Amino acid sequence: MRIVVQKYGGSSVATPERIKAVARRVVDARRAGNAVVVVVSAMGDTTDELIALARQISDSPPKREMDMLLATGEQISIALLAMAIHDLGEPVISLTGPQGGIITDSAHTKAKILEVEPARVRAELNQGRIVIVAGFQGLSRDSADITTLGRGGSDTTAVALAAALGADVCEIYTDVKGVYTADPRVVPSARKLADISYGEMLEMASLGAVVLQPRSVEYAAQHGVTIHVRSSFAHEEGTYVREEKLVERDMVVVGVAHDTNVAKVVLVDVPDRPGVAHRLFSALAAEHINVDMIVQSTKQEKTTDLLFTVTRDDLPKTLEIADAVAKELGATGVLHATGLGKVSIVGAGMVSNPGVAARMFGALAANNVNIQVISTSEIKVSCLIDLDQVPVAVRAIHEAFGLGEEQNAPATSVEG
Amino acid sequence: MRIVVQKYGGSSVATPERIKAVARRVVDARRAGNAVVVVVSAMGDTTDELIALARQISDSPPKREMDMLLATGEQISIALLAMAIHDLGEPVISLTGPQGGIITDSAHTKAKILEVEPARVRAELNQGRIVIVAGFQGLSRDSADITTLGRGGSDTTAVALAAALGADVCEIYTDVKGVYTADPRVVPSARKLADISYGEMLEMASLGAVVLQPRSVEYAAQHGVTIHVRSSFAHEEGTYVREEKLVERDMVVVGVAHDTNVAKVVLVDVPDRPGVAHRLFSALAAEHINVDMIVQSTKQEKTTDLLFTVTRDDLPKTLEIADAVAKELGATGVLHATGLGKVSIVGAGMVSNPGVAARMFGALAANNVNIQVISTSEIKVSCLIDLDQVPVAVRAIHEAFGLGEEQNAPATSVEG
Repeated sequence: MRIVVQKYGGSSVATPERIKAVARRVVDARRAGNAVVVVVSAMGDTTDELIALARQISDSPPKREMDMLLATGEQISIALLAMAIHDLGEPVISLTGPQGGIITDSAHTKAKILEVEPARVRAELNQGRIVIVAGFQGLSRDSADITTLGRGGSDTTAVALAAALGADVCEIYTDVKGVYTADPRVVPSARKLADISYGEMLEMASLGAVVLQPRSVEYAAQHGVTIHVRSSFAHEEGTYVREEKLVERDMVVVGVAHDTNVAKVVLVDVPDRPGVAHRLFSALAAEHINVDMIVQSTKQEKTTDLLFTVTRDDLPKTLEIADAVAKELGATGVLHATGLGKVSIVGAGMVSNPGVAARMFGALAANNVNIQVISTSEIKVSCLIDLDQVPVAVRAIHEAFGLGEEQNAPATSVEG
Repeated sequence: MRIVVQKYGGSSVATPERIKAVARRVVDARRAGNAVVVVVSAMGDTTDELIALARQISDSPPKREMDMLLATGEQISIALLAMAIHDLGEPVISLTGPQGGIITDSAHTKAKILEVEPARVRAELNQGRIVIVAGFQGLSRDSADITTLGRGGSDTTAVALAAALGADVCEIYTDVKGVYTADPRVVPSARKLADISYGEMLEMASLGAVVLQPRSVEYAAQHGVTIHVRSSFAHEEGTYVREEKLVERDMVVVGVAHDTNVAKVVLVDVPDRPGVAHRLFSALAAEHINVDMIVQSTKQEKTTDLLFTVTRDDLPKTLEIADAVAKELGATGVLHATGLGKVSIVGAGMVSNPGVAARMFGALAANNVNIQVISTSEIKVSCLIDLDQVPVAVRAIHEAFGLGEEQNAPATSVEG
């Protein structure tokens, strides 16, 4: 029998009515002849409410106890969804993450799935039951404690179960219809992609088009799980995320991502010697600050400017650390700026197509968009620009690469 | 080291402030040199709110899924209490019922504790930690599913843990200061008992003075666990519930209980043959209707009247069943009455002291209280009377046996 794993996020199960709607979708998949495993998140704002409750007790609650608390959110969802499916007449059972065999490390509140022991899930499927597994949570291998995977962890739960069960597809239901060539709110002609490679999806996700939790895409790539991103509110195909060789593609660039939550920090005149970057970025990592772009440009003989970007939320903490490190290293000072945005093009075929970056820069120049910082990888090019120019820039690039509904240009036209 | 098990009910942990107050009490017990295990219920009305949520999904939710849902209530409490204790600087860990080794049968929503596997709790105590265990829940031995013990089950969790750990005492914190000779709201001179035997406590509980869940008293009696019932809002000794031989007592009657939630049902002229009572009461038991008093009095040669009492809530369902059984057995009809109350005296010494019942009847007669039904056991005498006479009756009996603060009469005075 074909095995399908379906994952529904918090907004899909936010109310009893929505839970019943999800139940109907699950039952449809079962009655179409599939063995169905369902992963759900906590209802709506439940997780935030539980966090607020913890804050009333303690300013710094132990992470193990936060996990004990937060895991109740998904446990409520799975029980209610099981009740709704039962009411529709299908055999069903709900399992917590630990019962579902989700084994993690002991990094409470951001645990990593180490393996999945699918014996119980398989046994329940073999009984003809729909199996509901709580997302976001697992059991630590060492201490047999309840862990949580951190925000968006339910995506990873679903992918890990799909991998362990050899599922045919892992369907991630969300409030968008799939992965688009650009944010449809910014680019009305943006087109839903039929498929996208894991690497491209990762870049799109990390560049602000957050549809899937990046860790889930990595996990899928490692285990060859096909993800189908689709809408929980519409009955149409979404976007398949799969191995690059399976992706049918006539475009070099698959999408234009943008990110408006960017702050820039510059350490000015840092002595140019080994270990400088390590000193700074390990200090930031120790505070769990994610650094995005990093650009180093030597402007004099003995000093260099070290530029990087973080999210705006992380800026205050980042400046504290940067100031301390600058003093320690003997840099002249620390500059920072907000009011910035990032636009990026993503495409696995880029590396073998010269001139792609030039075309992007050309589109920006033609629209008087000044580029402050450029950063590239094998499958993406990112530019830091003024925040208020982001919409113009995204539309211009989208058009330059012919990504829209009506004007899809073949790959051969994308050459310098 | 002395091991103390403490249990706090839902009202004791209803708000973050109260949870912090409980944390201080727990920490006090720890710092006094005890190894402390804490059992908590769900916060305030959480369980009722979860039940209401389930009702929005389904009219008849599967019991297994109800347990999955309801168990989250205690899981929230234990996590929050652990946070509060951690904030006070004591090492602490919270455990769900399954983690705490509470092994039950598979009777979801009213599971029975089969055994306690205290290995994890012991290991945590040996690490110097305060151990918090979720009340009301366990793990079914056969299916490794989450079960709940039914209303009041947290008392039983605490007693079972105390038994398994060989604890010196199981402290049950509640909103009353202990077990009284009568309800202080009815009898202002009612006196708090220093101790009471298991059997007496069971009779007091089942007769309307519900301080402890009866199942927890049975469990304590079977395993010789001393229970200390005391107030969570005051710092004074409460009432010890222990083996009869350990109870120091100068009274034959320890208390006067009353129950105002009583309905009477009479099957009239039932043919007097074997199996009649079994037919009726097994039909009621199948619907989980608890029958309290049962009186059968043969008034003619071949028929008998069968009288029994149930709670008022159970009356409609009871009448349905009684009507059907009456028809089947060929009884003349079914009568019923509400507007009744029950007053009872309880005392383990009663069986060896003749005249105790007569003194009770005398007190009632002196106050013009008419007795409708009398029922006795070795350690109690109950009378069914008019509901509006209950307060007068309780006060009269309380005085007749000299149970009040100022007027405590020795046992020797209680003789017919």
